[in-house]
Amino acid sequence: MSTSSLLEANVIQDLRDTGQQLRVDSVRCSAAASSGHPTSSMSAADLMAVLLARHLRYDFAAPAAPGNDHLIFSKGHASPLLYAMLRAVGAIGEQELLSYRKAGSRLEGHPTPRLPWVDVATGSLGQGLPIGVGVAIAGKSLDHLPYRVWVLCGDSELAEGSIWEAAEQAGYSRLDNLTLIVDVNRLGQRGPTRHGWHTGDYAARFRAFGWHTLEIDGHDVAEIDRAFAIATGHPGAPTVVLARTRKGRGVAAVEDKEGKHGKPLPDAAEAIRELGGIRDIRVAVAPPVPVPAGPHLRPAAAWQPPAYEPGSMVATRTAFGQALAALGDARSEVVVLDGEVSDSTRTEYFATRHPDRFFEFYIAEQQMLAAAVGMQVRGWIPYAATFAAFFTRALDFIRMAAVSRASIRLAGSHAGVSIGQDGPSQMGLEDLAALRAVHGSTVLCPCDANQAAWLTGVMADLEGVSYLRVSRGDTPVIYQPGERFEIGGSRVLRKAPDDQVTLVAAGVTVHEALAAADLLAEDGISARVIDAYSVKPADTATLRAAARETGRIVTVEDHWPEGGLGDAVLSAMAAGGPLPVARKLAVRSMPGSATPDEQLQLAGIDTGAIASAAAELVAGHTA
Amino acid sequence: MSTSSLLEANVIQDLRDTGQQLRVDSVRCSAAASSGHPTSSMSAADLMAVLLARHLRYDFAAPAAPGNDHLIFSKGHASPLLYAMLRAVGAIGEQELLSYRKAGSRLEGHPTPRLPWVDVATGSLGQGLPIGVGVAIAGKSLDHLPYRVWVLCGDSELAEGSIWEAAEQAGYSRLDNLTLIVDVNRLGQRGPTRHGWHTGDYAARFRAFGWHTLEIDGHDVAEIDRAFAIATGHPGAPTVVLARTRKGRGVAAVEDKEGKHGKPLPDAAEAIRELGGIRDIRVAVAPPVPVPAGPHLRPAAAWQPPAYEPGSMVATRTAFGQALAALGDARSEVVVLDGEVSDSTRTEYFATRHPDRFFEFYIAEQQMLAAAVGMQVRGWIPYAATFAAFFTRALDFIRMAAVSRASIRLAGSHAGVSIGQDGPSQMGLEDLAALRAVHGSTVLCPCDANQAAWLTGVMADLEGVSYLRVSRGDTPVIYQPGERFEIGGSRVLRKAPDDQVTLVAAGVTVHEALAAADLLAEDGISARVIDAYSVKPADTATLRAAARETGRIVTVEDHWPEGGLGDAVLSAMAAGGPLPVARKLAVRSMPGSATPDEQLQLAGIDTGAIASAAAELVAGHTA
Repeated sequence: MSTSSLLEANVIQDLRDTGQQLRVDSVRCSAAASSGHPTSSMSAADLMAVLLARHLRYDFAAPAAPGNDHLIFSKGHASPLLYAMLRAVGAIGEQELLSYRKAGSRLEGHPTPRLPWVDVATGSLGQGLPIGVGVAIAGKSLDHLPYRVWVLCGDSELAEGSIWEAAEQAGYSRLDNLTLIVDVNRLGQRGPTRHGWHTGDYAARFRAFGWHTLEIDGHDVAEIDRAFAIATGHPGAPTVVLARTRKGRGVAAVEDKEGKHGKPLPDAAEAIRELGGIRDIRVAVAPPVPVPAGPHLRPAAAWQPPAYEPGSMVATRTAFGQALAALGDARSEVVVLDGEVSDSTRTEYFATRHPDRFFEFYIAEQQMLAAAVGMQVRGWIPYAATFAAFFTRALDFIRMAAVSRASIRLAGSHAGVSIGQDGPSQMGLEDLAALRAVHGSTVLCPCDANQAAWLTGVMADLEGVSYLRVSRGDTPVIYQPGERFEIGGSRVLRKAPDDQVTLVAAGVTVHEALAAADLLAEDGISARVIDAYSVKPADTATLRAAARETGRIVTVEDHWPEGGLGDAVLSAMAAGGPLPVARKLAVRSMPGSATPDEQLQLAGIDTGAIASAAAELVAGHTA
Repeated sequence: MSTSSLLEANVIQDLRDTGQQLRVDSVRCSAAASSGHPTSSMSAADLMAVLLARHLRYDFAAPAAPGNDHLIFSKGHASPLLYAMLRAVGAIGEQELLSYRKAGSRLEGHPTPRLPWVDVATGSLGQGLPIGVGVAIAGKSLDHLPYRVWVLCGDSELAEGSIWEAAEQAGYSRLDNLTLIVDVNRLGQRGPTRHGWHTGDYAARFRAFGWHTLEIDGHDVAEIDRAFAIATGHPGAPTVVLARTRKGRGVAAVEDKEGKHGKPLPDAAEAIRELGGIRDIRVAVAPPVPVPAGPHLRPAAAWQPPAYEPGSMVATRTAFGQALAALGDARSEVVVLDGEVSDSTRTEYFATRHPDRFFEFYIAEQQMLAAAVGMQVRGWIPYAATFAAFFTRALDFIRMAAVSRASIRLAGSHAGVSIGQDGPSQMGLEDLAALRAVHGSTVLCPCDANQAAWLTGVMADLEGVSYLRVSRGDTPVIYQPGERFEIGGSRVLRKAPDDQVTLVAAGVTVHEALAAADLLAEDGISARVIDAYSVKPADTATLRAAARETGRIVTVEDHWPEGGLGDAVLSAMAAGGPLPVARKLAVRSMPGSATPDEQLQLAGIDTGAIASAAAELVAGHTA
């Protein structure tokens, strides 16, 4: 690409000066913090100076304005640069800039939405691009607004597979409202990247995935300006601007040197002098194109969950899918994402009824999760579904969604050994543990269709990450249509004054526990049965009362013994006073193939196993 | 590619007949099971017939023979085809073939190493190729043996990012001992793939990543044969054979039809007739090239862990890295993998000392994990390291490693809020929950350098997935050099006959608990302190004794409250009899940036918080 430009010389100088200011401020805040990533910021400073001054359309006084562009720092460790940009536009002041990385400051080591101008938390590399793809899809297919999505990536993070899931999705979807800027500074954390400054290697890859590519000198402001202009005008494909840069640019002590990652500059005062001193350039950012106030939504209406006849047999996954389709009628902001298994997760009901709000991500769970996060940035209510087991593919995205304060809803089908013949690779046996250990999460495990349907609707208004675990096989409908289930609640299904033991179950094991209670009754043992459908938060009061009143607890779950229902129940009871004797039934050996009933029996979580464990506790045996 | 071939007509006919036999047997076993994926098997039958009869070098009587080729079914749902191949070579008989998917059968719904001819479990799509890359790296760089790695993928799974992490790794490493066969049958589970039969789309992507590509008709046995011959002879790059095929090939009722995924054929008897009936062709597979018996190993020697002076301050990550380097001296089968953070995880010590056994995977955690699984297939002892938080990126691979009965060792640095300023994106706060919930895993959390060093060595001989959680900051050395720590053990650091409460900690919180015990002693409260370094398996006996003797337990962990140390301790004590009053201290709010000490205090897991909780329990307060 030629470096010729139509920019006036004074504009070029202003842009260069702005770039230097961003560097100086990156150095200053990192020095004040005695930590941080100034050199990773300095390489991208010219790119961001040109973006801010000439291409971004954004009202910093109204960060929620629907027409605003979106800028995502996929290389979140370059947070000093982002914060320097915020000072350059007057969004934050000198004092806040220097609060970087200090306790209580919004200016964290990596950006989070505690800052209103930050859409999503980054810092786990390779996530910003797929999330940006989600925002870009929202712009094109949901909001129908002309905002542009800009993503700044480092070159190191192009090794992440999630980047190529995003490249595939964006290329195939022709997301020409998306511009990826790659700061190719050729140095990772511990040394050179694989491809160094060979931007052609990256360009070939992106072109193969259907992208428009530009390779430039990332320190030539005129060339940068021209590239961004071409990118915004290029129709029918996303553009990647591959910019060759120098890490630590502008300060000889660190420029393009190894061993300078993630630490303040050795002599900040000297570096600031070398960069031309502290400046107070105020960058005027172009306002967004005026647009209507919100997404194209109808007012929310009361929804009618599907009704299932008590006594009939229905899989909870089916109820989830049918409820979701009905919810979509009432709530126009509900959108659904699936990973090429909609016939299994039953989101196909929604897809058929609301094809304009259904998004197929094929077998790319990381991109699916990231897109859900991206869509909720714009106020949409995403439900993402796949097999429970395969959310483990995207756990880092779920973890980061919590740091992003994102509200996303997940549904995992094919939970547990009860799926039967397909074997352990398809069984979600660690999903409760993984999802419970997400900050602020809600974990729900319905046992019947009416409960699953109701909870599907409740999830729409939950904040944070919520997870619905549903089952493959049909289970008996035991609740009435329209019965309400609270988050943090439970159902006591059997209770008598002389209960000697409590059986706590969720999902498929509820039905085993009910049958076990019948068996125990034949032997003269009265067992309380609790449907603990709200695994997190657990119904602490009901569980503690049961512990107190019956003195013995058996928990039973179609899950590994660690981190699931049993641990949740023990934890809920622990702080309440001396605990009862407890026995935790769970899957303890690696399953193979077998019928669903055989699986439950082999795992020791079926009716007989529950009844035996309860009877042993009552007889005074402990393990 | 031309379909001309040098094959004799009778050879072509034999290959076609073999393909039909593989189809018939796929149909038969699925029919007997009333489930399974025959149509996904039938599309790849000709590819596998040619591979088996003319290109694979394998002694089915000696599956562990070092010279054997490796065949990995990345599309694990095509297990009927694999089992049909095993019958065709005489490895299994008619009766076992028809045991497919039945309780107790080795022929599970998706292949696992319960069959000696299966290296790794598959069924979570997108894993077979990156694992195959690991085996191919072992062949080239560790074993120095001429075996070839063949991976069969479906086209749907090419959407997974892990495929492109593998493509990058294999292309860059010029793994010409690797052949990827893609069965492009254009139909996924719920409908057409993105790219259909446009193999050129895939070829362009693989070429951009440095691969040699061939596009063929996957039902023309002569063309298949020629492609495999070219692939095996092509130097300097891995080859992908993109084969256009038809799902359900050979049976009109299902061939190239939607809605036929993952179910037996509607009329198996008619299908078998249409395919020419049951055959009993016995395929003679070429033997492997004779090679020496094992990898190029020296006999194991006793290792000398590094020694740290009690009272000095050393980070456990440093001790891990230095121990690993020392272990590498004694154990020539130890190999180390890192994800571009070796200066943080401290595997750099090993990399410097044993560069030939250190493998850099850049920021591609899924490929790193998969390569560890691939290397242990060949008897190597892999340690893979990254930030504790970033193992969430690869949890599906860790989960599947357990299904594979693989022995891999993981080390996660930068655990918990105690990392300080970098903020929550970099903090491992769910790693204990995620790793505990892996079947058969061992989870270790050392608090000092000598303990970390010792446990690093112990891990070498552990079976299954083991995990070492290490910390960023320096902690006091409290144990003697060379002190032995058992798996399933603990250390009682303070104990008196009149202990009123037990503090259970691991890692950084051990030091907080010790200081809390000092504070409590000033108030006349005697506190037992347990270093529960073996989080899984936990030291049940010691914990139960403490519960019984002190009646009150405080657990404290630098982790979210769910699924970590506290849950492990409660679970260990639960079956032992009535539990004591327990209080679980953990990180309960989303951290920001702050110093390590501030973080512990803000999270309520520091000395003061522990002392307060313990004092309240002793005073009889419950939550």
